[in-house]
Amino acid sequence: MPSPRGIVVGYAGTVFSVDVADFAVGLLIDVLRRISFAHRFIRAGLWPLPLGSKQLPLVLTLFRFPFIPSFEEQFSEKFRALKRTDLSEPLNQFLTKHAQSVRALICGAGAPVNIETLNHLPSLSCVLTVSAGLDHIDLPECRRRGIVVGNASTVYSEDVADFAVGLLIDVLRRISSADRFVRTGLWPLKGEYPLGSKLGGKRVGIVGLGSIGSEVAKRLEAFGCVISYNSRKKKPSVPFPYYSNVIDLAANSDVLIISCELNNETFHIINKDVMSALGKKGVIINVGRGALIDEKELVRCLVKGEIGGAGLDVFENEPHVPKELFELDNVVLAPHKAVLTPESFSALHELVIANLEAFFSNKPLVSLVKND
Amino acid sequence: MPSPRGIVVGYAGTVFSVDVADFAVGLLIDVLRRISFAHRFIRAGLWPLPLGSKQLPLVLTLFRFPFIPSFEEQFSEKFRALKRTDLSEPLNQFLTKHAQSVRALICGAGAPVNIETLNHLPSLSCVLTVSAGLDHIDLPECRRRGIVVGNASTVYSEDVADFAVGLLIDVLRRISSADRFVRTGLWPLKGEYPLGSKLGGKRVGIVGLGSIGSEVAKRLEAFGCVISYNSRKKKPSVPFPYYSNVIDLAANSDVLIISCELNNETFHIINKDVMSALGKKGVIINVGRGALIDEKELVRCLVKGEIGGAGLDVFENEPHVPKELFELDNVVLAPHKAVLTPESFSALHELVIANLEAFFSNKPLVSLVKND
Repeated sequence: MPSPRGIVVGYAGTVFSVDVADFAVGLLIDVLRRISFAHRFIRAGLWPLPLGSKQLPLVLTLFRFPFIPSFEEQFSEKFRALKRTDLSEPLNQFLTKHAQSVRALICGAGAPVNIETLNHLPSLSCVLTVSAGLDHIDLPECRRRGIVVGNASTVYSEDVADFAVGLLIDVLRRISSADRFVRTGLWPLKGEYPLGSKLGGKRVGIVGLGSIGSEVAKRLEAFGCVISYNSRKKKPSVPFPYYSNVIDLAANSDVLIISCELNNETFHIINKDVMSALGKKGVIINVGRGALIDEKELVRCLVKGEIGGAGLDVFENEPHVPKELFELDNVVLAPHKAVLTPESFSALHELVIANLEAFFSNKPLVSLVKND
Repeated sequence: MPSPRGIVVGYAGTVFSVDVADFAVGLLIDVLRRISFAHRFIRAGLWPLPLGSKQLPLVLTLFRFPFIPSFEEQFSEKFRALKRTDLSEPLNQFLTKHAQSVRALICGAGAPVNIETLNHLPSLSCVLTVSAGLDHIDLPECRRRGIVVGNASTVYSEDVADFAVGLLIDVLRRISSADRFVRTGLWPLKGEYPLGSKLGGKRVGIVGLGSIGSEVAKRLEAFGCVISYNSRKKKPSVPFPYYSNVIDLAANSDVLIISCELNNETFHIINKDVMSALGKKGVIINVGRGALIDEKELVRCLVKGEIGGAGLDVFENEPHVPKELFELDNVVLAPHKAVLTPESFSALHELVIANLEAFFSNKPLVSLVKND
């Protein structure tokens, strides 16, 4: 049709009509016959298996899990995973709709199990966490409801201990800082690089001599370090000197390695007084949880030179790290990764499956958390 | 005096005259009475001690030594140090002028003792190096002249072993790279950090199981690594599997740690074939000397992903490091500092003094190098 200015306009005519009509009918059928809903239903593992085949136990996975594809296969041979795939749906709504019959769940540090979550899971009897720490689970409430809890136990202990030792060597011998020195081309220009400090003979105080702390001690003994420790109670089978008080431990140590559990008693266990007792040359390594240390005080002490250095894998407000630390050469920073190796994930997967098999066979969990 | 344009010019008058005159007289006296020369003479330790006091033995120090002030005092109670303070004077001229009677010298990797230096030191009978390596000393020529040689022996072994283990943990668990990740603010933005690899169970091949290699083995056993080694000869007292061929060792290892001596036989001992045998996931740690590895080939293999990673404290052309390495996250670089701690320097100082005392008392050196 010619326009008033004589310009001819062409258009697509009926080229799209069939497609649009098809789509409209598709939407109508989907709404009426709940096709997308059914798709989510199947993906969430809710579709009953064919008659005659054994019904696999349903396991709610609140945590982005598994990490390794081969595990998914292994898992799905034994269990059906109930996952919240539509993250726009509120968790509680999802639980009310789909999880009323769920007896076991898998959680992690990023997916807490609090009283509200528990209130939406009336059939729950087993909570498994992929973490060694338990600070994201309401343990008293689980105990009250008779829910058993299993954790990652010692699966990560060796990796975390390796990482703690790596951080310590790195801080004392200034490896990351040396790497920056070389990478930024300063070696030919400046030549001299500041001396580090020897590992051998260092008095290392371990705060929390559990499975991680014990692995750290075993490794550091091979370097000639002198070990002592603090924990809730003296461990009769352990040969190292025990300090019931962290300040005394710090006063008698060149290095503190923090590998205890975070709970009400250990929150900010490394405070200003502990850092003062550790002193100007003292080094702190934290592979536990950020809130074990009064982070503001730590940053102040590092900036003012009131302690000698720090290697930190964990922080109070992850993933946010105090920016003042970015300028310091006597600190080494890592993004909460002390546990992260494919080897420890494989071990974790095996443990999770073993725990679920035990639970659904009415046997005690392999890595049962004492909760009394 | 008014200028043609009427501008008045002032000047300093006689204000400086006295100072300039004084200086001219000073220069004249200095030249005639050799004051600066005498100053250098005293600083070089050439001034004879007062009559009656014992003449201390003269020791030529070619190396910037000592490193720690307290040592200077301790040293000067027992010996006189002959140092070349005027570096504009050629070494040979300095030696001819001042070192004809010198019987002992201290050298280091940065101050080689070659045949030319030896030719200028007719009285020399003892060469001490502050290094564990001997590649900067002409050993056959020393033997021919009956000069005894002492080195740093095992003084640095623990520190170097600590550093090697630190580099290995750093490469496998990506500590320096994690530190960059956090410092550049990427954690809150990217979240995920690539997995590292577990130490435990890794097959570690040590090239050169001397005192450093043995200390490395002792440490890595505590991490659950599986050790084997290559050296000139199988060591009967060592429990680890022995490979007479480095390629076979590499083919049966996940990690190679290079801690052997650099000499004609070990130059480029880690070549293309060894790296191929080690394979795509293999890691190389070098705390020996740069030229033990074919560096060009190493860089190519790292860039192409033909080996998995490297931790390097030494390079072929120090302080110059191949720039291609600066971009890689699977390498950790250090400026030849594996030996550098105050503790090892103290031990070195004691050893140097003990060696000199032995030499000047006609006793065998404490850390005598076998040179036959």
